[in-house]
Amino acid sequence: MVSKALGKYVQSLHQKKYRQRHGAFLVEGGKSVLELLSSDLETEHLLVTAEFASQNHARLPARLPLSMATEAELTQLGTLATNTTALAVARLPQEKPLLPTLPEAALLLALDEVRDPGNLGTLLRLADWYGLPGVVLSPGCADAYAPKTVAATMGAFARVRVWERDLSEWLPTLPAAVGIFGADLAGDNVHRLTLRPAGVLVMGSESHGLTPGVAAALTRRLHIPRGASGGAESLNVAISAAILLDNFFRNQ
Amino acid sequence: MVSKALGKYVQSLHQKKYRQRHGAFLVEGGKSVLELLSSDLETEHLLVTAEFASQNHARLPARLPLSMATEAELTQLGTLATNTTALAVARLPQEKPLLPTLPEAALLLALDEVRDPGNLGTLLRLADWYGLPGVVLSPGCADAYAPKTVAATMGAFARVRVWERDLSEWLPTLPAAVGIFGADLAGDNVHRLTLRPAGVLVMGSESHGLTPGVAAALTRRLHIPRGASGGAESLNVAISAAILLDNFFRNQ
Repeated sequence: MVSKALGKYVQSLHQKKYRQRHGAFLVEGGKSVLELLSSDLETEHLLVTAEFASQNHARLPARLPLSMATEAELTQLGTLATNTTALAVARLPQEKPLLPTLPEAALLLALDEVRDPGNLGTLLRLADWYGLPGVVLSPGCADAYAPKTVAATMGAFARVRVWERDLSEWLPTLPAAVGIFGADLAGDNVHRLTLRPAGVLVMGSESHGLTPGVAAALTRRLHIPRGASGGAESLNVAISAAILLDNFFRNQ
Repeated sequence: MVSKALGKYVQSLHQKKYRQRHGAFLVEGGKSVLELLSSDLETEHLLVTAEFASQNHARLPARLPLSMATEAELTQLGTLATNTTALAVARLPQEKPLLPTLPEAALLLALDEVRDPGNLGTLLRLADWYGLPGVVLSPGCADAYAPKTVAATMGAFARVRVWERDLSEWLPTLPAAVGIFGADLAGDNVHRLTLRPAGVLVMGSESHGLTPGVAAALTRRLHIPRGASGGAESLNVAISAAILLDNFFRNQ
């Protein structure tokens, strides 16, 4: 049985305003909750079904505030269509310093107004797969800690660092040696280049592309060749990012 | 004003059972409807707002049954959260013959139990981008003509051919020269291979991988290298397919 106060608190975290006010966010579903528990993030509350608790007894930290809940309660308090396992409240991580020299040594992903939380989550998962040091989000992006984003990361939310920066201000502050890459239909064919995973790869929103200030900061425009008889006008932003990242990492 | 009978018919097409019974499916939103009208598919009914009709007058075929509808009616009859433009009923296309020699000359995508309509739609869009001759779906896949799939194709539904086959029966009937490729963590590193776009690329469901009969039919297993410090266990099925397709098409 979940207390009324805790239930109200959990439900408030559906909204960004309350996530920011309380410095906390929701993690829903057993798989994501187990990723949270095995990460560096701090867990504040854990709500679990009796079945999940008994199956994962060894993985639940002893010191943590734990509430038993029914499947109906988890589903009602959360945002998933059904939740039969677990839900956690985690502390929002402190933003680590974003060193301007970082992109000289490694590839950062920067997202310009990527508003769809599903796309954002998939991009964070991709950053995790390639072990990028993190992802820089423009203020117009979806919230990295919205329930839909967290779900779409498939656990990567617990590992990938994110920073929020006004990209049109931040990109020009980077050392001149840092490559700033972006996708552009009129750019260079990635199949003809030998890319190395260093610099910043900027991806824009699917519908609007890069904002003008960000487009102006690019030092290299990249183009993914379409099939000779291809019909689609464009690719999804996460799909494009995946193809570009594979092209950066294939020459290591 | 949409007639009651037409409204009922449109709503029945939310369900696969009625799509099959009537041989028709729904296309929702102005952009998708315009893709439909400029394709080879047959349009049965067109429901449009007055504003959409006046803005796209030249692109609406004169012979077509056309109903004017309010935004509220379109939204209520369809599956989108809001639809302020247009909705069409299109005829399900006739399945063209699937020649066993086709994959000797070109690359086909085959999907094994890909149940999520969003993923299926994204995969069809990808097939369209690369101009693949089509996509072969196992009976357990999401319906290629479900409203969510159609929406996720971003217009590719109007161009990409699909076939339904029991893959574990169909794959072994292909000529011996046809390569049957699948993703496998223990497979060959795609960055070390020179792949050509011919054969069949089989993608399995994200949660369960390839079914045993399909896995047994593969002639080559491919592996997408993860970043050296990467954390994610896996990639989304459409993301994996995109990276693999780029590797097939880069050596043309």
